[in-house]
Amino acid sequence: MKVEYIQPFILATRKVLSTMAFMESKPRKPYLKSDNKFEDYGDISAVIELKGECKGSIGVGFSQDCILKIAQQMLGEEFADINDEISDMVGELVNMISGDARRELVKLGLNFTAGIPVLARGHQQHIKHFVPERVIVIPFQTDAGSFFIETAFDSKKFLE
Amino acid sequence: MKVEYIQPFILATRKVLSTMAFMESKPRKPYLKSDNKFEDYGDISAVIELKGECKGSIGVGFSQDCILKIAQQMLGEEFADINDEISDMVGELVNMISGDARRELVKLGLNFTAGIPVLARGHQQHIKHFVPERVIVIPFQTDAGSFFIETAFDSKKFLE
Repeated sequence: MKVEYIQPFILATRKVLSTMAFMESKPRKPYLKSDNKFEDYGDISAVIELKGECKGSIGVGFSQDCILKIAQQMLGEEFADINDEISDMVGELVNMISGDARRELVKLGLNFTAGIPVLARGHQQHIKHFVPERVIVIPFQTDAGSFFIETAFDSKKFLE
Repeated sequence: MKVEYIQPFILATRKVLSTMAFMESKPRKPYLKSDNKFEDYGDISAVIELKGECKGSIGVGFSQDCILKIAQQMLGEEFADINDEISDMVGELVNMISGDARRELVKLGLNFTAGIPVLARGHQQHIKHFVPERVIVIPFQTDAGSFFIETAFDSKKFLE
């Protein structure tokens, strides 16, 4: 995969979490998702369709510990469980990550518009990508637990 | 104009400011912008292109007092002036308002994708809409000062 095109998503994710939730996060090594490998999908996830340069999507999934901490810092109250307000917030997070990454991708000559977040709650829920082949997973670590983002694009630019 | 299609933008604006910046806002009467009327455009504004159902855009502009208060509550520190960090935040705000409104518009059968925010700083800067005719202005009042949103669409659905 082209690190150049993945990097904007990593930077956008770190920036959004740092700015909006005062949470620092550390990316681990990106990998191509294999069909057979069982993945830990997190407890809540959201995916957003991207169109323009090519078709694709960006998704984000959080462990419960991680998203409850983010909610506390972003919304200013403590939560015991994932509720509708937190679902909305996860939608906002992926929307912001998509927006920030797309702003960087424009500088590389790649122009995308974004759809609206589709949410999935519950452990091992699959993020449904609009281009399901060749999904790139980027795991992140925070002091409050793990999360990951996934990107999937149908252009060779992203895969070579 | 169709209140039905303007309402999602008003609700999205109030929700985003209330959730993200703990700020309540009160919409005033929407009006069609007249070419000749001199408008107070606020001290910082951002506009985002919408595509799909029809072409259009959603913009938001803030007075300095209002955006400095929002920045304080959203970013957790005090600011004396509008800086790059606040510009970024205004971009995030219009991105979130667009996302939330588009999620509601889908329920009315109107499907839009969104571009990336274009920022303008400085008093009486014009928001540049992608469809400049028939701009609808919705002023808002908050305890910290005024702001407004503008929508412009080239579909009769929004104008009749």
